[in-house]
Amino acid sequence: MRMRNKPWAEDELKKSNIVILDKKNCKGSWSSFFKNENEVHLEIGCGKGKFITETAEKNKNINYIGIEKNKNVLVLAVQKLKKEQSNVGFILGDAHNITSYFLNGELSRIYINFCDPWEGKKKWAKRRLTHRNFLNLYKSLGKKNIEVFLKTDNRELFEFSLNEFSNENWKLKNISLDLHNSNYENVITEYEEKFSQKGAYIFRLEAKSL
Amino acid sequence: MRMRNKPWAEDELKKSNIVILDKKNCKGSWSSFFKNENEVHLEIGCGKGKFITETAEKNKNINYIGIEKNKNVLVLAVQKLKKEQSNVGFILGDAHNITSYFLNGELSRIYINFCDPWEGKKKWAKRRLTHRNFLNLYKSLGKKNIEVFLKTDNRELFEFSLNEFSNENWKLKNISLDLHNSNYENVITEYEEKFSQKGAYIFRLEAKSL
Repeated sequence: MRMRNKPWAEDELKKSNIVILDKKNCKGSWSSFFKNENEVHLEIGCGKGKFITETAEKNKNINYIGIEKNKNVLVLAVQKLKKEQSNVGFILGDAHNITSYFLNGELSRIYINFCDPWEGKKKWAKRRLTHRNFLNLYKSLGKKNIEVFLKTDNRELFEFSLNEFSNENWKLKNISLDLHNSNYENVITEYEEKFSQKGAYIFRLEAKSL
Repeated sequence: MRMRNKPWAEDELKKSNIVILDKKNCKGSWSSFFKNENEVHLEIGCGKGKFITETAEKNKNINYIGIEKNKNVLVLAVQKLKKEQSNVGFILGDAHNITSYFLNGELSRIYINFCDPWEGKKKWAKRRLTHRNFLNLYKSLGKKNIEVFLKTDNRELFEFSLNEFSNENWKLKNISLDLHNSNYENVITEYEEKFSQKGAYIFRLEAKSL
């Protein structure tokens, strides 16, 4: 997501006690961060935070972490969070370093919403967040069976993801090829709001490691 | 497929020695029908036979059976078959009675191409050829792990099928959400020829019972 540079963003994030800037401070410490032992769900690329803050509002007995690499975007997510929402935290960081932020077993579910599809060159497939290398990372961070919930408007990425999950023997369920004309409960992201207006199909799936 | 009634169709089918009209004559006898022990692949709803005859031509060490309930259509498939093609047989019959035609273990693969999607009423889902009840029938007819190859232009049916196969723990692979822009080998059916010209996406998958 392109976003005008905000020189004040870093200071704002530093001031906040719900944003992790230094990975040393979180791995293995999430239950003390949230002050409870509830399940932890991660959103990779939380953007401006609409999805994570609304989802957290609906599920107060679950802890949510949003990871976002763009500080100019993350700062908007932090501002969006209501003061009384104590079940949300953020990480300024890159999904590629996900194992630096979590100990094995610390996560129960990962949301991937409208990630970069890395279309085009075949060698880029490895950068996709549903490439088998990532799936194996996620698996290692999960409590027993970790879940991945994926949403995208990109046909190629969705096809790739279905195949990757299947090949890696994850159990798929609640697959939709047209989410906005389905009965699945859906918290809409900022991106989704914009793109579904253009008539694009939204794809979604749930996958569970076995 | 709607087709003008051909009063001569039944006689033509009766004369042919590659068409099974009476189910008593085939269950458990397919290797003697084909005079070999090669794998047997079934196409459910073979229509006018373009797919099965072309596929059989390319794979002479596999036996193919097309089942079709409409005699006016099946007769065209029989006429299409070249005389020297000894690896194809046909059944005039209904997929709902599939267990009447095959003994457990007689099939290795089933092709389902552009079957009726039974859209609309929820109670019709049971009629879909990828409903769990059918999947369990197919499984019982398979040698060890039976394969199902599905093609459709119907989004709702494809979504339904992905979920049914996953829920029933079949292993999915080679999924395509846009077959005609993919690298998968593809023998085009009559229906597909007509509908892909209208710009519809063609979906396909392979599933294997575990």
